[in-house]
Amino acid sequence: MPSVDYPDPVKVLIQQLKQLPGIGPRSAERIAVWLLQQGTGCADGLAEAVQHAGHAIVECPVCGFFSTREDGCAICDDPARDRSVVCVVEQPTDILPMERSGAFRGQYHSLRGRLSPLEDIGPDKLRLRELVSRVAADGEVAEVILGLSSDVEGEATSNYLVEVLQAFPQVKVSRLAQGLPAGGGLGSADDLTLMRALQGRVSV
Amino acid sequence: MPSVDYPDPVKVLIQQLKQLPGIGPRSAERIAVWLLQQGTGCADGLAEAVQHAGHAIVECPVCGFFSTREDGCAICDDPARDRSVVCVVEQPTDILPMERSGAFRGQYHSLRGRLSPLEDIGPDKLRLRELVSRVAADGEVAEVILGLSSDVEGEATSNYLVEVLQAFPQVKVSRLAQGLPAGGGLGSADDLTLMRALQGRVSV
Repeated sequence: MPSVDYPDPVKVLIQQLKQLPGIGPRSAERIAVWLLQQGTGCADGLAEAVQHAGHAIVECPVCGFFSTREDGCAICDDPARDRSVVCVVEQPTDILPMERSGAFRGQYHSLRGRLSPLEDIGPDKLRLRELVSRVAADGEVAEVILGLSSDVEGEATSNYLVEVLQAFPQVKVSRLAQGLPAGGGLGSADDLTLMRALQGRVSV
Repeated sequence: MPSVDYPDPVKVLIQQLKQLPGIGPRSAERIAVWLLQQGTGCADGLAEAVQHAGHAIVECPVCGFFSTREDGCAICDDPARDRSVVCVVEQPTDILPMERSGAFRGQYHSLRGRLSPLEDIGPDKLRLRELVSRVAADGEVAEVILGLSSDVEGEATSNYLVEVLQAFPQVKVSRLAQGLPAGGGLGSADDLTLMRALQGRVSV
């Protein structure tokens, strides 16, 4: 005796939703049913937004940030930004918190990942060649700031970049400082953060 | 100094995702970025599934379950099902757990909601008239089983239905039993459930 289930279009929709990050089977079902109960306007709006973004958004060939054009992006094209400093980040999404801080007015370079032998991600799978040719071609770059994560894979990627960039002795390579978070006290800091804060202490 | 943000198509996509149930701003951003990094095939697949389901799925005019046809659904059309018993549920999604239990082989009637004065949902906003005309027109209906929630609004809706169905003295009206969940011991039952289990005790 086969039990009744959703009609096929609903099952396909649930399948599609289930593959999204953070969406489990029950969330997918809840979202699908909600969408169906909102009427076609809502489903059409979502479908159009997904499709439009999927087609309109490309990777900026220079920095790797999201762009609507094939030949640049809002950051790379901004003449007011300092072209002599390039901050290397892992993901294009890492650019946004930097921008929100307002503390950096240079250029970016997203690697679109980081070295991870376990996941079989070697230097050839990252936007490393693009970084090297950018530094080599563009005599303007005077400093590369490494803004990668401070976990094992991020550190390994940073160390690899330091080695690669030794080919350009005129380019200064720096890393973001590690230490206590702003507003955070000693009580809430973990051992490693405290050690880094001590190592990086500055004379006043 | 305006800080850089996502291009417009990404912002529209995040907005659309944010309105889905259970999706907050950070989940919406994560899903949008994930979709963009999967390539257009993935976005197209999701968009098509959303749009297709939105257009292909209609409400069965008889029971209110999801259907792909305007004139019935897989349950209402099944000649093997008992047409003399109609189980009233709140949402069409409530039909699925009943079906999965395999314990019911009659017909359903989804109210598409329940009475809720606070949310301004009166009898006219539910599929009540459809239930009454179904019972009135169809001499076959011998029993209506009320399968609504046992919270305040569900109970109020059940009581309202009992009153309305008094107009059909030939139709038996029953409610799903309340008591201990199968496999659950006394230790994990709340007071109200225990009270209901006592009230509904059956002689052995």
